[in-house]
Amino acid sequence: MEESVQVGPWAAEAFVDYEKLLKVFGAKPLTDSEVRYLERIAGESHAMLRRRVFYSHRDLDVFLSKYETGYRCALYTGRGPSGSTHLGHILPWIFTRWLQEKLGLDLFFQMTDDEKFLHEEKLDLLESNSFAYENSLDLIALGFDYRKTHIIIDTEDIGYLYPIAVRIAKKLTYSTQRATFGFVDSTNVGLIFYPVLQMAVSFLPTELFGEETYVLIPAGIDQDPYWRIARDIAQGLGYPKPSQVHNKLLPGLGPEGKMSSSKPETAVYTTDPPDVGAQKIMRAFTGGQPTIELQKKLGGNPDRCSVYKMYEMLFEDSDAMLQERYWSCRTGSLICGDCKAELASRVRKFLKEFQEKREKARDQVDMYLIRSKFDKPSLRSRTVLR
Amino acid sequence: MEESVQVGPWAAEAFVDYEKLLKVFGAKPLTDSEVRYLERIAGESHAMLRRRVFYSHRDLDVFLSKYETGYRCALYTGRGPSGSTHLGHILPWIFTRWLQEKLGLDLFFQMTDDEKFLHEEKLDLLESNSFAYENSLDLIALGFDYRKTHIIIDTEDIGYLYPIAVRIAKKLTYSTQRATFGFVDSTNVGLIFYPVLQMAVSFLPTELFGEETYVLIPAGIDQDPYWRIARDIAQGLGYPKPSQVHNKLLPGLGPEGKMSSSKPETAVYTTDPPDVGAQKIMRAFTGGQPTIELQKKLGGNPDRCSVYKMYEMLFEDSDAMLQERYWSCRTGSLICGDCKAELASRVRKFLKEFQEKREKARDQVDMYLIRSKFDKPSLRSRTVLR
Repeated sequence: MEESVQVGPWAAEAFVDYEKLLKVFGAKPLTDSEVRYLERIAGESHAMLRRRVFYSHRDLDVFLSKYETGYRCALYTGRGPSGSTHLGHILPWIFTRWLQEKLGLDLFFQMTDDEKFLHEEKLDLLESNSFAYENSLDLIALGFDYRKTHIIIDTEDIGYLYPIAVRIAKKLTYSTQRATFGFVDSTNVGLIFYPVLQMAVSFLPTELFGEETYVLIPAGIDQDPYWRIARDIAQGLGYPKPSQVHNKLLPGLGPEGKMSSSKPETAVYTTDPPDVGAQKIMRAFTGGQPTIELQKKLGGNPDRCSVYKMYEMLFEDSDAMLQERYWSCRTGSLICGDCKAELASRVRKFLKEFQEKREKARDQVDMYLIRSKFDKPSLRSRTVLR
Repeated sequence: MEESVQVGPWAAEAFVDYEKLLKVFGAKPLTDSEVRYLERIAGESHAMLRRRVFYSHRDLDVFLSKYETGYRCALYTGRGPSGSTHLGHILPWIFTRWLQEKLGLDLFFQMTDDEKFLHEEKLDLLESNSFAYENSLDLIALGFDYRKTHIIIDTEDIGYLYPIAVRIAKKLTYSTQRATFGFVDSTNVGLIFYPVLQMAVSFLPTELFGEETYVLIPAGIDQDPYWRIARDIAQGLGYPKPSQVHNKLLPGLGPEGKMSSSKPETAVYTTDPPDVGAQKIMRAFTGGQPTIELQKKLGGNPDRCSVYKMYEMLFEDSDAMLQERYWSCRTGSLICGDCKAELASRVRKFLKEFQEKREKARDQVDMYLIRSKFDKPSLRSRTVLR
């Protein structure tokens, strides 16, 4: 389990060997066949699929065929609100929003303010709870449909999850959970329980809609362990297994590692003033050569370049333009300064527009909260009775 | 910890060596001085105090002096709803009701339907939840004041507890909890988390009333470990330490062990038809001699007699009459058959009257539920902010 712990939920890095990860986790690579299936249903192609930013899955094909057959379906993803949102966070949300729009699906979005509070020594509960509301603004700014988007804030909406969670918990021993999540004697008992709450959301739609509901979870591969276990126990509890589709993590702007709030200078936050965001790009670590002369002679390495990855994963829709950028870099005809300046200008524009929507979102948060729309599922409902 | 595990929350026996228990748990014996202090405040004496049915405590004196000084105070006790209520369960509730009446205190009563579901392999969640409502009828039949009695059903009222519980959980490591509760690798993760919910109620009154509230918990000594830990961490979380007063467990009607649903023939349930209850008494194991002749010659042993204990702990208010019964037995002038017949008749009468009140209680349950009276404490309240 050593390897899985290194990319477990609390310690993910970028520029990861994703092939190896697939083997360790036992997920399936996303093939052309699944991509075509999804694009056919969506009626549209998506760059994150073509470029395998979403690159592996569990039962995506099953989910799609259930969707096509007319079964009730839903989306589920979430966020651990321990700070401001950066571009690495919104990457899977952008794809999730596309799925919601194209497939017309309800999205359940979990804000795990409990997890973050329990995990981070110095974080106060009120603080992580406040970040849950702050981070909701980013979600709303991305254009999710409030009629179909339901935010669960764990500490406040625990009533929706706990009756499902205890039924999950009864099936999971300490030793199973320790093996998966790397618990030790000094782990606090809140963290030992927490994973069942993240599993519980995958079964919530079935309870709320009162019918078998197939759930697809777009999320980083680092979150896979939760739902791998949820899949193992789903049928014993009378729920469909949740499907997953995994994205790669956006690299930070430094020489290594995913974009992370632990290195704020390498992360572009949605709340960064546009000029600050642009500046961060200008200071980014690239795959270029030390001098312009060498760059022209030897070419750069876009495969290990945080700036190129930003284009590939978020800021260049056109495959042709991306290809051209790739080869211009490799052959030395594109200089890092120019490449960064172009990205900086796109990032500046994105931040400016995003922040306008984000400010408007302040008045809309209530419309997105699950508690404003659904009653807690009754213990006496059809499903829990089983 | 071996000894504490044997009388830990999930494995309590009766005819226990209570002196030894006191030493193991480190609680204080209830002395004449505390009994007099409480009786003075209550303006009345209580048989369960005089006879040390309640026999040990933690900071009862502190609680009483806070009460007297005018601090806000409350009571807290509860029940694990895994079956019907028997006389052993209602023993501490009778005393608690007396405290509520004499001291004018709010009572928070926790129904741990989650715990029982998690603990008992074959128990369904809907079942333990239904028992929570059934058991509430017994509470109400005892005459608790609905304006001051607030029932918390864990799976449904988790929202009141969880924000407090995560703050407790962050302070408790797996190894601490394992040492106290005897967890092993195969313990399910629900049970590992559960204790913090039982601790959380001791802090809830402070949150709900928005002021420092001193809590007294009348309960069996077997439940002490939960609140011993709650006391250890209370001040670090900004709450007063809960006080406790411990009762001895009512023996069952068999040769040994507390009254327990695991041996239903040795337990008198509040729902037993009065004649069945009386019959169980007639079949009870006593401290008497094998024959009437020997009894007359050698006398019986009331100290090891389930029938005598029933008089002492529940069915004989008069100290003089109890003394007389004790010595009549010891000297052989009282025969078990007669002694049982008298108790059987009192039990029959009790059950008949109790069950009438219990039926009336069906229409009153809602008035006792915490959710019908209090909003969930806000994360932004004064106390959680600290």
